[in-house]
Amino acid sequence: MISTQTTTPIARVTNKLSSNALKLDPDRLFPVDGAKRQIARRLYESVKSLPIISPHGHTDPKWFADNQSFTNASELILTPDHYVLRMLYSQGISLEQLGVKPRGGKASEDPRESWRLFAQNYYLFRGTPSHLWLNTVFFEIFGMTVKFNANTADLYYDTITEALQTEAFRPRSILDTFNVEFIATTEGATNTLSHHDKIIREGWGHRVVTTFRPDDVLDPDHHGFKNNIERIGDLTGHDSLSWTGYLAALRERRAYFKARGATATDHGHPSPATRNFSNTEAESLFQKCLAGDATASECEDFRGHMLTEMAKMSLDDGLVMQLHPGSCRNHNQALFEAFGADKGADIPKRVSYTEHLKPLLDVVGNDTNFKLILFTLDESNYARELAPLAGHYPCLLLGPPWWFHDSPEGMIRFRSQVTETAGFYNTAGFNDDTRALLSIPARHDLARRMDCRFLAELVSEGRIDQDDADEIIQDLSINLVRRAYKLPQSATAKVSAAE
Amino acid sequence: MISTQTTTPIARVTNKLSSNALKLDPDRLFPVDGAKRQIARRLYESVKSLPIISPHGHTDPKWFADNQSFTNASELILTPDHYVLRMLYSQGISLEQLGVKPRGGKASEDPRESWRLFAQNYYLFRGTPSHLWLNTVFFEIFGMTVKFNANTADLYYDTITEALQTEAFRPRSILDTFNVEFIATTEGATNTLSHHDKIIREGWGHRVVTTFRPDDVLDPDHHGFKNNIERIGDLTGHDSLSWTGYLAALRERRAYFKARGATATDHGHPSPATRNFSNTEAESLFQKCLAGDATASECEDFRGHMLTEMAKMSLDDGLVMQLHPGSCRNHNQALFEAFGADKGADIPKRVSYTEHLKPLLDVVGNDTNFKLILFTLDESNYARELAPLAGHYPCLLLGPPWWFHDSPEGMIRFRSQVTETAGFYNTAGFNDDTRALLSIPARHDLARRMDCRFLAELVSEGRIDQDDADEIIQDLSINLVRRAYKLPQSATAKVSAAE
Amino acid sequence: MISTQTTTPIARVTNKLSSNALKLDPDRLFPVDGAKRQIARRLYESVKSLPIISPHGHTDPKWFADNQSFTNASELILTPDHYVLRMLYSQGISLEQLGVKPRGGKASEDPRESWRLFAQNYYLFRGTPSHLWLNTVFFEIFGMTVKFNANTADLYYDTITEALQTEAFRPRSILDTFNVEFIATTEGATNTLSHHDKIIREGWGHRVVTTFRPDDVLDPDHHGFKNNIERIGDLTGHDSLSWTGYLAALRERRAYFKARGATATDHGHPSPATRNFSNTEAESLFQKCLAGDATASECEDFRGHMLTEMAKMSLDDGLVMQLHPGSCRNHNQALFEAFGADKGADIPKRVSYTEHLKPLLDVVGNDTNFKLILFTLDESNYARELAPLAGHYPCLLLGPPWWFHDSPEGMIRFRSQVTETAGFYNTAGFNDDTRALLSIPARHDLARRMDCRFLAELVSEGRIDQDDADEIIQDLSINLVRRAYKLPQSATAKVSAAE
Repeated sequence: MISTQTTTPIARVTNKLSSNALKLDPDRLFPVDGAKRQIARRLYESVKSLPIISPHGHTDPKWFADNQSFTNASELILTPDHYVLRMLYSQGISLEQLGVKPRGGKASEDPRESWRLFAQNYYLFRGTPSHLWLNTVFFEIFGMTVKFNANTADLYYDTITEALQTEAFRPRSILDTFNVEFIATTEGATNTLSHHDKIIREGWGHRVVTTFRPDDVLDPDHHGFKNNIERIGDLTGHDSLSWTGYLAALRERRAYFKARGATATDHGHPSPATRNFSNTEAESLFQKCLAGDATASECEDFRGHMLTEMAKMSLDDGLVMQLHPGSCRNHNQALFEAFGADKGADIPKRVSYTEHLKPLLDVVGNDTNFKLILFTLDESNYARELAPLAGHYPCLLLGPPWWFHDSPEGMIRFRSQVTETAGFYNTAGFNDDTRALLSIPARHDLARRMDCRFLAELVSEGRIDQDDADEIIQDLSINLVRRAYKLPQSATAKVSAAE
Repeated sequence: MISTQTTTPIARVTNKLSSNALKLDPDRLFPVDGAKRQIARRLYESVKSLPIISPHGHTDPKWFADNQSFTNASELILTPDHYVLRMLYSQGISLEQLGVKPRGGKASEDPRESWRLFAQNYYLFRGTPSHLWLNTVFFEIFGMTVKFNANTADLYYDTITEALQTEAFRPRSILDTFNVEFIATTEGATNTLSHHDKIIREGWGHRVVTTFRPDDVLDPDHHGFKNNIERIGDLTGHDSLSWTGYLAALRERRAYFKARGATATDHGHPSPATRNFSNTEAESLFQKCLAGDATASECEDFRGHMLTEMAKMSLDDGLVMQLHPGSCRNHNQALFEAFGADKGADIPKRVSYTEHLKPLLDVVGNDTNFKLILFTLDESNYARELAPLAGHYPCLLLGPPWWFHDSPEGMIRFRSQVTETAGFYNTAGFNDDTRALLSIPARHDLARRMDCRFLAELVSEGRIDQDDADEIIQDLSINLVRRAYKLPQSATAKVSAAE
Repeated sequence: MISTQTTTPIARVTNKLSSNALKLDPDRLFPVDGAKRQIARRLYESVKSLPIISPHGHTDPKWFADNQSFTNASELILTPDHYVLRMLYSQGISLEQLGVKPRGGKASEDPRESWRLFAQNYYLFRGTPSHLWLNTVFFEIFGMTVKFNANTADLYYDTITEALQTEAFRPRSILDTFNVEFIATTEGATNTLSHHDKIIREGWGHRVVTTFRPDDVLDPDHHGFKNNIERIGDLTGHDSLSWTGYLAALRERRAYFKARGATATDHGHPSPATRNFSNTEAESLFQKCLAGDATASECEDFRGHMLTEMAKMSLDDGLVMQLHPGSCRNHNQALFEAFGADKGADIPKRVSYTEHLKPLLDVVGNDTNFKLILFTLDESNYARELAPLAGHYPCLLLGPPWWFHDSPEGMIRFRSQVTETAGFYNTAGFNDDTRALLSIPARHDLARRMDCRFLAELVSEGRIDQDDADEIIQDLSINLVRRAYKLPQSATAKVSAAE
């Protein structure tokens, strides 16, 4: 079903037209106009060296627990990055060729061969954030000075693979080098957090924490829903197949995560629908879902009701709630069957927040002790629904541009469509949301540059003054994220964020 | 239910980082590029002093009827402004603290204390149009030269409150000072217009008129729907509980408003849905709505049918019809119960026009004597539906960016998404849509600046020439609004608008 | 029903305010900033003279078959252009006045009088792409040096009408003058392609080809659906009223078009809905549609299923599939009844792709031999659905900004919302999609200028480098369209596109 035949590429005559030098413009992403550029530069100088706070991401905690070296360039940079896989796949390159293992099988391709294919097709990424992130990684981290293409594939592969064997490139050293003050991983409700326990034992618990992501026990459409619920029953000693036992088990799992440093939960639902049923109705729905008798609409009802239950628990235990809705996961059925999830085949769909969030907000929306950070893949909601909601409800904050929109243009759309109604202070700072470890500084740097650019535009057009911009850039770069995720203040911060 | 506890604010170190001078850049909002800025300046010079035409707003006619002085800074600038209330509330400040009276209660807060809280949190508004409008009011109207913050709260409060006691700040003097040539208020169908009668008796009837807003008798979901219908029966002598009597009463109420200067009606429906039922069907639906037996869908049907009835009446009496759809009013149930409507808790939702307007357009869409001005909170319709509709149907005009989108970025989106399909001449000029009296000149000035900016971009990129831009800016600033709302030409206009 | 009364125009005082010179800025549409402008100019120099490839349009093949002169300015430039008709109609000018024939009637207006009305109201088009295209036609093709308005109407009419009688303005000469290397027309499934046969006989078959547009036999809501199906039965000798005969007839008609040069099919459905029924279900649905018993939803099902059938046939015969969904055709019922289709009364509506395309993609989405080019009138899909889909599925390409969005701002939105997720290489180059023959070079020139502008922004902000931009502009201007539509490589291309 999955073709391995590539489409005919546009013939690239790199040697004729392109010089080979890889350069990074120190003013990249800033406005070009002289006056604006000066303002952007000045703002950037004040934040470029601030520590990285990464409160929502998908790095593997095993890396930081075991602190083993990574193997080679492909296995770190190419094969796990669904942004990269999706683009190459869209041009007819098979996932096997890129080193992805089929379900129950082995990778059939030599990692160096996969890397060469990547290099040969790197021109496809021009104009994408992956191109910006990767060029930054190549130039700043590995010191490459020639462009990445078919001619330089082996040079890149060897340089990177060798570097990865050095002490400086062990996972914990990377966090030091990158000045990562705080990073959160994401684990499911059944996870025993053994990696995090090891991280804590070895003294890194203040920098690397987990996040509670209970989709696997809240979503009746999740593969293994009932088994997972039984599993949290086993883990907690509650009768999780009863409604009250299920809620108790969830509460206890939350506490378990919180005890290991988690400050937040995360919810990846198909839509932002929330519900608020009576206890009796909810119990009956729960049993129907467990029995596998729930319709698609009842599954949606159950997920929606459980968001409200999670919100109420957040009010009790103080965990910040994050909602990431609107991705149609595993849209490519054949690819999913062959290779599993997270291979670049998730496609956003239209969602709405105004009516969907109302049941939850009717319960906890006015409580200033509750915090819900909203994300979207449907940008039509920025100005229409999200900014008005966050610009009114005390509990709501807007997360940064997410996934496909974590990009220069995505950031311009976010700030220009959100700020006028929600201001800067109903937003939650930047998230990198990535499993691509090496790209983390590049992503934060890109976000800081884009914020400097946005503020420079406002200042140069007389919409805010320079003193205000000086404060705002500090807040956007470090204070808002600390406040949103209830993180301790660091001594390195210039402006204090109360907690 | 409504918490009064504030969230921990970002600690603001205003004294360290910020200078205290309040300045307004005379070139604010213009393009920064030198050539573009020159063009924008020249265009702006030609319109900055034109009179203000304000054909759609929510100022209180009592002000102009009685011409009494306003009391203090808080009661004029803070407490009635739902843009300001919503932002402060979003950060955990209660409405009581801001001087808002609970239903059936009294304001519990001293107005000066509310003002201080506003000042202390004024940094939240950075990047919002409220910040631009208010700074303009502070600087230009009250001559403030230091920034508004915790340190200057009392200075501001005292300066403004004292000024308000002078003759120059009585409501009618304000209209003179602001060069307001025409301003329309908005009244419900049961209103006897006694303030407007007084305004007319005292010779201000050509400058201050009413607008007929019959939502209270067209919307079965409106609190008091049946009572209001009985009331217009009493006022007109028609049996308004019968279908024919209801229509007759509506016609007579429209005539009553028109006789007092109204040139327009206004309709604030949840959606732009229109219907065109037979007389028999409509009568049956009306009786069902009166009896309180209508489903949500039937209420929507009734509202939709009544828009078509209103359109037909407009064809007869010449009143221009305005449609403001898509706000989910009083989204925050607890807040609404505690404080009532218009407290910053209305949230837009997704709407559609193409299919929703068709029944009405099938009846009156090709009649050049009918005018319907469309507004939206769902900007995804600008390029997709509204510009194509207004760029075809003779009866349609597009109103300016509305509410949350009455802002610099909102105006850029409007012009850039509407103009290429609908041109400039299917738009209706600017509306301030505000109850914030003092901000009216700032709002019109902002709109004129943004239009100058947009035209300067087009000229500098060779998309229109300078002579055309010179004409267009006059049309956008004064001619189009006069034509759209059927207002008399003023001697001050340079270019004649026929009517 | 259709009023012929015009609305009162804004009085234009052209003679006072406007100079009369018509000029085209050689740098039009480029960025104004000096550094950016230099980059844009350099890129433009490298592509401005490349041949025109027009793989999707609506010119009349009779023009190229018979090569007769056009009659007059109105009949070529005004009356057939629905962009122009719609704007004039929106301001109260009747279609009769513009020379449009009512159904079964004759044009009642003298073409010169229609032209004068057009000239008098030409100011309405300021800020629209029609204004840019027409000014380019007037200046570059007819050498006009004064602006088009009431005073110059006759000069324009006479100059253009006389030029059209010369040899240089016969249709085939126009293709030579315009450097059109390839142009596709669009014909329905029942068309015998006699014009194309003549074109082939006369040696122009390599430059002018047809496109297979079977809406008339796939859409049960199409007027004459059953008759058309009977007709393709007659043409092919298959029993087209049986399900298998219908499919066989479709296959044969596709082969007939392909044999006359077609490389693509085109589908203008109300929505992008696709379905994948079993053969038995499809057969039953087909018979219901033929019998006229299908509900609206079943008609949508049938259209959706037939898209999947078309995709499967494309896999067999190699025709590239194009999908143009989301136009609510003939929205103005009275106008449609009076004048028929394509009079400027088609209005876009909201559509979705993620869920709608899934059934088709589940069947052919991973096959690299299948190509589906997607278009949209609902731009909210660019970043949310279309770029993620095209950035993953090997079969998908994105067509250029379409119809209302074929404009400078539409192109900025397209590139800025699509590129970061889909890159440049999942797009299909430019289409002019027009029946306005003379505007073709202006449209391609505008698209090339906008691409140069977009790339100049990226280069100047350090987001791509100059060498990459040099390659990309060639690809956007000529290589991508050749690859997408499977066209032969031309000797004039600098960079080879394999096929």
